[in-house]
Amino acid sequence: MSQATATRAAAYAAPAPKAPLERTTVPRRAVGPRDVLVEIRYAGICHSDIHQVHDGWHEGIYPMVPGHEITGVVTAAGAEVTRFAVGDRVGVGVIVDSCRTCEHCLAGQEQHCADGPTGTYNALDRAGEPTYGGYSTHIVVDEGYAVRIPDALSLDAAAPLLCAGITLYSPLRRWQAGPGKKVAIVGLGGLGHMGVKIAKALGAEVTVLSQSLRKKDDGLALGATHYRATSDPATFTELAGRFDLVVSTVSAPIDLGAYLRLVRVGGTLVNVGAPEEPVRLDLFSVINGNRSLAGSMIGGIAETQEMLDFCAAHGLGAEIELIRADQVNDAYDRVLAGDVRYRFVIDAATI
Amino acid sequence: MSQATATRAAAYAAPAPKAPLERTTVPRRAVGPRDVLVEIRYAGICHSDIHQVHDGWHEGIYPMVPGHEITGVVTAAGAEVTRFAVGDRVGVGVIVDSCRTCEHCLAGQEQHCADGPTGTYNALDRAGEPTYGGYSTHIVVDEGYAVRIPDALSLDAAAPLLCAGITLYSPLRRWQAGPGKKVAIVGLGGLGHMGVKIAKALGAEVTVLSQSLRKKDDGLALGATHYRATSDPATFTELAGRFDLVVSTVSAPIDLGAYLRLVRVGGTLVNVGAPEEPVRLDLFSVINGNRSLAGSMIGGIAETQEMLDFCAAHGLGAEIELIRADQVNDAYDRVLAGDVRYRFVIDAATI
Repeated sequence: MSQATATRAAAYAAPAPKAPLERTTVPRRAVGPRDVLVEIRYAGICHSDIHQVHDGWHEGIYPMVPGHEITGVVTAAGAEVTRFAVGDRVGVGVIVDSCRTCEHCLAGQEQHCADGPTGTYNALDRAGEPTYGGYSTHIVVDEGYAVRIPDALSLDAAAPLLCAGITLYSPLRRWQAGPGKKVAIVGLGGLGHMGVKIAKALGAEVTVLSQSLRKKDDGLALGATHYRATSDPATFTELAGRFDLVVSTVSAPIDLGAYLRLVRVGGTLVNVGAPEEPVRLDLFSVINGNRSLAGSMIGGIAETQEMLDFCAAHGLGAEIELIRADQVNDAYDRVLAGDVRYRFVIDAATI
Repeated sequence: MSQATATRAAAYAAPAPKAPLERTTVPRRAVGPRDVLVEIRYAGICHSDIHQVHDGWHEGIYPMVPGHEITGVVTAAGAEVTRFAVGDRVGVGVIVDSCRTCEHCLAGQEQHCADGPTGTYNALDRAGEPTYGGYSTHIVVDEGYAVRIPDALSLDAAAPLLCAGITLYSPLRRWQAGPGKKVAIVGLGGLGHMGVKIAKALGAEVTVLSQSLRKKDDGLALGATHYRATSDPATFTELAGRFDLVVSTVSAPIDLGAYLRLVRVGGTLVNVGAPEEPVRLDLFSVINGNRSLAGSMIGGIAETQEMLDFCAAHGLGAEIELIRADQVNDAYDRVLAGDVRYRFVIDAATI
């Protein structure tokens, strides 16, 4: 791809809501003074990709190229770029721009930009053009919204860290998961398995709460000390009040009240899953025991870099199943069926 | 009343669920070595009294003598009592006992006792006998569950502090309401009006969010800087992200998502109201902006004493309408109609 002019990149896109993804090309802007051109090597498949392709959050912009767990290599850099050079291994996550001037942007919480951050796909950029995500061969991004992939991480296993990794790292840090703390991770999927790895690396005692014991061996191997089935009512009685922190990664509606009762007095359940429908909540589940139900949305750019450095230092990549781009629709079906251990990653060389 | 033997005290009781309260007598235990006999002077009417008389929380114990906002004077003390003497002005709040040995009791959070605290009424005490509350002439209580009413507080205006006061004080302190903080109090009733007074005394900038502007003059006089109607949609757009802390005192189901969007990024909405039915909650209202929905249940005994001392230092009593005991059923109707400014208090001399 050329650096100087806008061009088109090969991509897999959903042409319309719920339509299967198919190969196409999408525009990529000319590399501006502060932009880097990234040759994409890998793109993770996040559950929210499927939500958005299915227009679960309305109103989707089509054609839609999903993908916000992107790793690749810089192949061109604008004249004013200072942080990256050609050849650098970089990642792009859930957002590619924000206002840069509001209190949240200035505080490194670009994901909470008062003006609204620009999503990596299914969004309009500051010039009003649609953004297209990582199921593609190239992307052009402002250097301020790219992060460095440490040498210790392979680019394929690092891709899911850009969403799943930071989505778990941020709340685990905010609520001080660490030595002496008991942390439960609800759901052992793409998000949950990174939660187990990161919480363990932070020093917490980790319990997985999963529908069944089907993945128990995996959970223990990933770092959990305990693994309990939520289909077993005894789980909820025996573990009542046990956890300093519960992180739910489940995107289906669950009985959050039941999980709140597993939190110690004054503790917190953080929800990072994204159900499409509102949930019902008995407020006594927070009143009793002064508990909190918190939400958490990815993390800022600097925190994403911190997470990558942490993962590199602890040897933490995602557990992935590498697929060809033409397998993406089957992969979606398998994600919806819970049949992935633990993240599909598209090999962009096959696009 | 005698000190040495169990006796009966005059009281107003609901003989059955939803039945009007009527005058009767109830047993009061002999004053044990660590007990004080309190001649009740005043008892506040809390919205939860009505919930419980109406069996809204199931399963109520009848006859039920409500009342957990009690002030009075010690008229007898057991041989081992060290904290109080005959003639002392004391208060009794929502709980009258707990296990005293669990981590929460030892931490001064008796309301979260692992074995369950003993409610001042509508509960069974540790001997298995029903407890009867403050709509009565006397109560016998372990000295560890009584608090001192500072001289600067009148006993009538102090009574509602034992529930409404501590219910607001505890979360306002936990979430650091104070100088430089913007706090919204949702609902200007018995709880809410104490929230305004306490938050103001703590140094916060206080906004009242009430259904209408009907009580605006009161709200400003109580210490609020701003007063906005929740029936006006502009309230929710103009105040989006404004508050460090929102405390909802509303016991009817409200759209908590709408109120969460008034909280700044990373901030908290604390719910102290007690809806009988579960609420619907869009989880994006906590995910977006990393917000928290927390609950808070009264406070511990030591914190209740701290609250009373704080209120005395700042001259804060409840705004009350003093009634005769035989007006209690009418008062209940008026509470349900929102027609009280801001707490009914029963003059126990009329029982």
